[in-house]
Amino acid sequence: MALELHEKSKGKISIASKVKLESRDDLSIAYTPGVAEPCRKINQNKSDVYKYTSKGNLVAVVTDGTAVLGLGDIGPEAGLPVMEGKAILFKAFADVDAFPICLSSTDTEEIIKAVKMIAPTFGGINLEDISAPRCIEIEERLRKELDIPVFHDDQHGTAIVVCAGLINALKLVNKSMSELKIAVNGAGAAGSAIVKMLLGLGATNIIICDTKGILHKNMDTRGNFLKDELCKITNPHQITGTLEDAMKDADVFIGVSAADMVNEPMVKSMAKDSIIFAMANPVPEIMPDIAISAGAKVVGTGRSDFANQINNVLAFPGIFRGALDVRASDINEEMKIAAAYAIANIIPEDKLSPEYVIPDALDKEVAKQVAKAVAEAAIKTGVARI
Amino acid sequence: MALELHEKSKGKISIASKVKLESRDDLSIAYTPGVAEPCRKINQNKSDVYKYTSKGNLVAVVTDGTAVLGLGDIGPEAGLPVMEGKAILFKAFADVDAFPICLSSTDTEEIIKAVKMIAPTFGGINLEDISAPRCIEIEERLRKELDIPVFHDDQHGTAIVVCAGLINALKLVNKSMSELKIAVNGAGAAGSAIVKMLLGLGATNIIICDTKGILHKNMDTRGNFLKDELCKITNPHQITGTLEDAMKDADVFIGVSAADMVNEPMVKSMAKDSIIFAMANPVPEIMPDIAISAGAKVVGTGRSDFANQINNVLAFPGIFRGALDVRASDINEEMKIAAAYAIANIIPEDKLSPEYVIPDALDKEVAKQVAKAVAEAAIKTGVARI
Repeated sequence: MALELHEKSKGKISIASKVKLESRDDLSIAYTPGVAEPCRKINQNKSDVYKYTSKGNLVAVVTDGTAVLGLGDIGPEAGLPVMEGKAILFKAFADVDAFPICLSSTDTEEIIKAVKMIAPTFGGINLEDISAPRCIEIEERLRKELDIPVFHDDQHGTAIVVCAGLINALKLVNKSMSELKIAVNGAGAAGSAIVKMLLGLGATNIIICDTKGILHKNMDTRGNFLKDELCKITNPHQITGTLEDAMKDADVFIGVSAADMVNEPMVKSMAKDSIIFAMANPVPEIMPDIAISAGAKVVGTGRSDFANQINNVLAFPGIFRGALDVRASDINEEMKIAAAYAIANIIPEDKLSPEYVIPDALDKEVAKQVAKAVAEAAIKTGVARI
Repeated sequence: MALELHEKSKGKISIASKVKLESRDDLSIAYTPGVAEPCRKINQNKSDVYKYTSKGNLVAVVTDGTAVLGLGDIGPEAGLPVMEGKAILFKAFADVDAFPICLSSTDTEEIIKAVKMIAPTFGGINLEDISAPRCIEIEERLRKELDIPVFHDDQHGTAIVVCAGLINALKLVNKSMSELKIAVNGAGAAGSAIVKMLLGLGATNIIICDTKGILHKNMDTRGNFLKDELCKITNPHQITGTLEDAMKDADVFIGVSAADMVNEPMVKSMAKDSIIFAMANPVPEIMPDIAISAGAKVVGTGRSDFANQINNVLAFPGIFRGALDVRASDINEEMKIAAAYAIANIIPEDKLSPEYVIPDALDKEVAKQVAKAVAEAAIKTGVARI
C-alpha cells in the first residue's frame, strides 16, 4: 500500500509557483530583467531577503540517513521518503515550506559545514534522523554558528510531546513534577532531550537506563560525552542496577527504547497511579492493556491505534510556524516549554481523562496554538527579529 | 512593479504535496509506519530512490551569488530571487521541480564539496551565476564526480540558443559553418562555451576578444586557465588587435559583453549578409536598427522587445526534462547539440526570416521538442539509465 502510493506519485513533494507565468510581462517581472530589483535591494540590505524571497518560510529537513525510523543507518537515499513525508506534514499542519536535504557524509564537521553552506536559502533547519551522539554536537554547533533556528526533532519534538502528556497526566493523579521519581529507558537523542526538558520543568529525580542498565557517575561511558552529561544530571541517589531496579517505586516510566522491555511485575513495582509512555515503534515497551491491568493509570504510546499517541507532528509544525512568524534566531528552551504547555492546554481540564492526556495528532488547532505560544516566548526571550 | 510582486507573494516558490494527508490512514502511509517500506526497498537497491521518491524530478539550482545577472558578486542571499525565478521557469516550461540552493562560500573546493553532499536528494544540478573561471572547474569536477547530470546554464544554455539561431540564420544567407569567420566578444563563461560549441558544430575560424582585445597564443593570460584554453582553440591565423580588427570581414558577431561595444563602421567592415547576436543586457552591444542599417542581415539580442530573443528558457527546461526522463548520468556535448538543432527546427523553413531565426521564448512546444531530442541523444550516447 505505502509502496504503491510512493511509486504512483513518484515521491511526495513538488515545487509550486506562487506567481503566474503566462505572459511576456509575467516573465520579465518574475525573472529578468525585473528580478534585478529585489536582488539589488537585498544586496543593499541583507535582511530584505525575508521581504522579497521565500527564505522566511523555507525549512530544510536535513538528515545523513544514519538513524532513520527504527531502521538505523540506511543512508541518505533511503532516508529520503521520510524527509519528504516530514516536508508534507510541515505543509499540511502549518503551511511551512520544507525541503528534504539528504547528505552524503556522516562526518560531523562535514555535516556542519554543508548545512552552513546551504543556510542562505532557508529560514530554519530541522535536523532529522541523525544518530546520537553526533546529532547533539551537530545541533549545538549549528545553533551557535547560524542566525536561523536549528531544531533536532528527534530530540526535542519527542521531548515536548512527552512533557505535554506528562503535564496533563499529573493533573489527573494529583502529583507535582518535583516530587516524581521518573525512570527513562533509552539514553540516545530522544531520551537525553526528555531528561533535560523534564529537569527544566522542575523534575528532580530521574533515573535513565541504557542497554547496560542504570547510568551513574562511576560507570565507564567510554568517552561518550552524551552519557557523561546524563550521568551528571540524573540519578541523585546514585542507585545502580537494571531497568527493573530503576522502575521500582517510580511514578513515571518513559520508554524510547525497544519492544517488550517492560513486563507486568515491573509495572506492579511502580508507585500508585503510575504513568507510562512506551514509545518504541511499532511494538511498544509494554502493550497498554497489560500496563493498565498491572496498575498503570495513564498509558501513552507512539501508535495511532491506541489512546494518547505521542506523535511529533503535534510539535514541529507549530514550533517552526511560530519561530518563522517572528523571524526567531533560535528555538530556545523557553520556546520548547511554551510549546509543551500549548499542546497540553489544547485539552480542557473537564475533558481530561487517562485515555486523553495528549491531543489527537490530526487536530489542526494544535499547530496554531503552539505557533502562538512559541512566537510569544521568542518575543519574551529576545530572539524574535520582527 | 517587480518589487511589489516579490514582496506581496513573499518570494516565488512553495512546496506542494503530491499526496493527500487528511486521514489517519493517509498519515500512516505517507509517514510512519508506512514510509518504512520504501525506505527498506531503497536501502536494498539504491536505484529504487528514483522509483519511490521525488529525486528523479528534482533539480538543484545552485549559485554562490558571484555573477548574478549583470549585477556581479552580490552574494547568495541577493541571488535568491533569480534562483527562485529559474525554479518557477523550470516548472512552467517543463514540469521540472527545481529548488534554489544559494551557497555561503565562494571557494571552489567548498562549493564542489557542498554540491556533492546534497546530491542524494537531486536528479540533476543546474549551476547558475557563478563567476568565471571558477564555474568551469566546478562544472567539470562535478560532472566527473557525480552520477547525476550537472549543467552550468550560463555557459551552455546561452551557447545552445546562440547556436540554434546561427543554424537557422545560415540557412537564410547560404553559408556553411566551416567557412565562417566568427568574432566573439566576451571571454567568460558564456563566451567560452559558445566558442567550444561552435567548434563542435564545425566552425574553424573563431576570433575571441576580452576587454584587452583579441586572444592569441603569445599573450599573457596571467594563469587564467580558461583564457589559456581559448588561446589554443581559437584564432588559427594568430591575428592581434582590438575587437574592431576581429570584426573586419567577419560573417558573424557574437557579443556576450557590454552595451555599445559595436558601432556602425564596425558592422560595415563585416562580410556581406552578416549575422549579429548582441546579447549584452539590458542594452545590447549595438541596437538592432543601427546594425540592420549598417548592413547586417540577421540580428538577435537578449531582449524580448526586439526580434530573435536569445533566451536560455528555450534550452534549460527541455534539456533537464529530457535528461531526467531517461535518468541520464550526464548532459554531454551530443545532447547539447541535439538541443540546439531541436530549437532551430521548431521554425519550419518556409517560416524562417531574418526577424525569425529563434523561436518565441513563450512557445511551450520548444521544451517538448528539446526534451525529446536530448533524451534520444542520451540513449544514443549511452548515458541514459532507463
